Amino acid sequence: MAVPAQRAAKEPSSRAANRAQSIGISDLLRLGQGNGVISLAGGVPASEAFPVAALAEAAETILATDPGRVLQYSVAEGYEPLRAWCADWWSLGDRAVVVTAGSQQAIELVLRSVVDEGDLVAITDPGYLGAIQAARLVGARMVGVPSDADGLCVDVLEDLLRKGSRVVAAYVVPNFDNPTGATLSLERRYALAALAETYGFIVLEDDPYSELRWRGDNLPSLATMSDRVVAVRSTSKILAPGLRVGFLAADAKLAAAVARVKQIVDVHTSTFTQQLCFEVVTRPAFLRGHVANLVALYGTRATALVDALRANLGNLSFHEPDGGMFVWGQLDDGDVSSNELLSVAMAEGVAFAPGPAFSVEAGHDNFLRLSFAAAAPEQLADAAARLGRAVRLSAISERVSYRV
Amino acid sequence: MAVPAQRAAKEPSSRAANRAQSIGISDLLRLGQGNGVISLAGGVPASEAFPVAALAEAAETILATDPGRVLQYSVAEGYEPLRAWCADWWSLGDRAVVVTAGSQQAIELVLRSVVDEGDLVAITDPGYLGAIQAARLVGARMVGVPSDADGLCVDVLEDLLRKGSRVVAAYVVPNFDNPTGATLSLERRYALAALAETYGFIVLEDDPYSELRWRGDNLPSLATMSDRVVAVRSTSKILAPGLRVGFLAADAKLAAAVARVKQIVDVHTSTFTQQLCFEVVTRPAFLRGHVANLVALYGTRATALVDALRANLGNLSFHEPDGGMFVWGQLDDGDVSSNELLSVAMAEGVAFAPGPAFSVEAGHDNFLRLSFAAAAPEQLADAAARLGRAVRLSAISERVSYRV
Repeated sequence: MAVPAQRAAKEPSSRAANRAQSIGISDLLRLGQGNGVISLAGGVPASEAFPVAALAEAAETILATDPGRVLQYSVAEGYEPLRAWCADWWSLGDRAVVVTAGSQQAIELVLRSVVDEGDLVAITDPGYLGAIQAARLVGARMVGVPSDADGLCVDVLEDLLRKGSRVVAAYVVPNFDNPTGATLSLERRYALAALAETYGFIVLEDDPYSELRWRGDNLPSLATMSDRVVAVRSTSKILAPGLRVGFLAADAKLAAAVARVKQIVDVHTSTFTQQLCFEVVTRPAFLRGHVANLVALYGTRATALVDALRANLGNLSFHEPDGGMFVWGQLDDGDVSSNELLSVAMAEGVAFAPGPAFSVEAGHDNFLRLSFAAAAPEQLADAAARLGRAVRLSAISERVSYRV
Repeated sequence: MAVPAQRAAKEPSSRAANRAQSIGISDLLRLGQGNGVISLAGGVPASEAFPVAALAEAAETILATDPGRVLQYSVAEGYEPLRAWCADWWSLGDRAVVVTAGSQQAIELVLRSVVDEGDLVAITDPGYLGAIQAARLVGARMVGVPSDADGLCVDVLEDLLRKGSRVVAAYVVPNFDNPTGATLSLERRYALAALAETYGFIVLEDDPYSELRWRGDNLPSLATMSDRVVAVRSTSKILAPGLRVGFLAADAKLAAAVARVKQIVDVHTSTFTQQLCFEVVTRPAFLRGHVANLVALYGTRATALVDALRANLGNLSFHEPDGGMFVWGQLDDGDVSSNELLSVAMAEGVAFAPGPAFSVEAGHDNFLRLSFAAAAPEQLADAAARLGRAVRLSAISERVSYRV
């Protein structure tokens, strides 16, 4: 009997797979792996500041106390005492918490649960590339909203809404934004929360950096301003990202919907790492002290980078950060694109994240994101010197190529 | 200025969220949580057999040796030595391995990467509810293919393909299927691999139970028969499910596509639990001995359940399992539906997974899945006695209700 020559027409590559092709977090991490390269590319915390002793004691305790539970399957929404800790630590009121595999999963799961193909999602532009990628993956159309020193330009978003754009979700990092480092002003927070109420969209408030502030006071979170705000939180920057423990907190209906999707995508977040986090964050007097140490460390590093940039790169403009992990620099010289600069910089022994990686569509060609969190002050000084050389070399080669 | 009354029309509940509404793994887990209820409902391994000492030593070792790495961000495809171990342990040849948050994530990520809205996915019916849910979530149309004592009826699938059904993926648990316990015959394995080649679809070979065999010999995996086979593997049944470490192994192109999607959905699987698994599985002479202990334990439990079912439920027919975790029983009495039986059984103090939970569309009303893995022999004897009483009570109430 002849077998028909018919084949399923397509390559094993769905629309979702095709949407996942842009530069991602792994690519930024890999940038720094060259020999002798000082990497300011990844948004990675200082590994020497991980709470290793506390985690080791916690691992020992939980495996000695209740191994049958902490190694067993559990429910999709996560470990109840850890969910309660999250709501309390971040003052999330009576929102329902779901424990996720880091805040990246929280972002993707919420978007997947509220966005249908073609729905409009508003994202700060430039914005966190993981959120841009997640919105693209779930099939959203994206509208990039610019930001300035006071964060997302809420008036621009309002204008879009008034003109009829039907946004289903807006994504914002209100404190020490990634990549710009900007903090959303109090006035704009209230305005954004009010827009969410008026126009009926949700606000994804992704706030991994608020604890890392060495100057000024934290502003009230958007979550205190409207029930339409879905809080996305993480232990990655205050404990360790390798544990992959994050959270979302939303009204009960949305949280239940997200938990049902989560159940299908990975059953639940590791019971073991959830319990490990819970042990460490509830250790008496531990977390506030640990965070204070991180703040001191990152503040020193930020100052070191800022000073070295000023000394080595007169043509780079940036705001000095009050917290977080990033300096977002703009090269005055329009001739130098950060993507081209990157190869020269790598040859000089320094890596950074090029601006276009954070663009909703395109642009930010002459911007660079520099993370100071994972490098010691002397490395940051070296990195800035190398970057300065790279910029000068690039500028020269640009001028030469113009002559040819 | 008047603010328009316009609102985004819809509730925060996307098509994906709506597709996630069916009974899921968390629901089955919760079934057993009543007071004094012996639960055979969840597919959960024996918690008393978790390798606690080995994991505790591993946690201590990795935190003492290289804490800065095992707690830090890493790349989406996972820890290279663990990927190499996976390919070696399961003889996966030169397939590219991606570490996932359990095999559930592997299933969902692969389907998301190859399925577009409306594409056809073939699934054993009855089949693993996590796979059915994942296929539904990614927008597949599903075609249920029946199975018998030799597993998936490959001839039925072939008939569908010959008639023009364009299947993009077929999902199968070749060893000790969930829920039926059936093992796919060697002849059918070759036939299924050949169909995949001829018709150009991928086969998802989900094989979490092959190590748990106490009678007979394992057959060659489908992965040895065609490059079109994507191997899905897990540490959940041989170490502990709470760690959430699984794998997929596919040709390099598909694996890379899946890793890029994974990067967006959760960045990577916990570096810490990956390293923990690696330490334990590569501990000299450990894993084979540990698995041998599990096999002895589960074999004893299977026998205990089978004997007790024969003694207490004359009207339940089933195949005696040679491995795995499940007995799939069919009630002769067509009057009793397993969903209705469940409430009576819960009142009697025993829980099971009702057949309809494993149906692609509907059906299997008079089937029950009984897991013997997590209960001691004397509990299994009690459970069968309680189930017998529940069946008799249900049959009586059915007859009474017929008279009314």
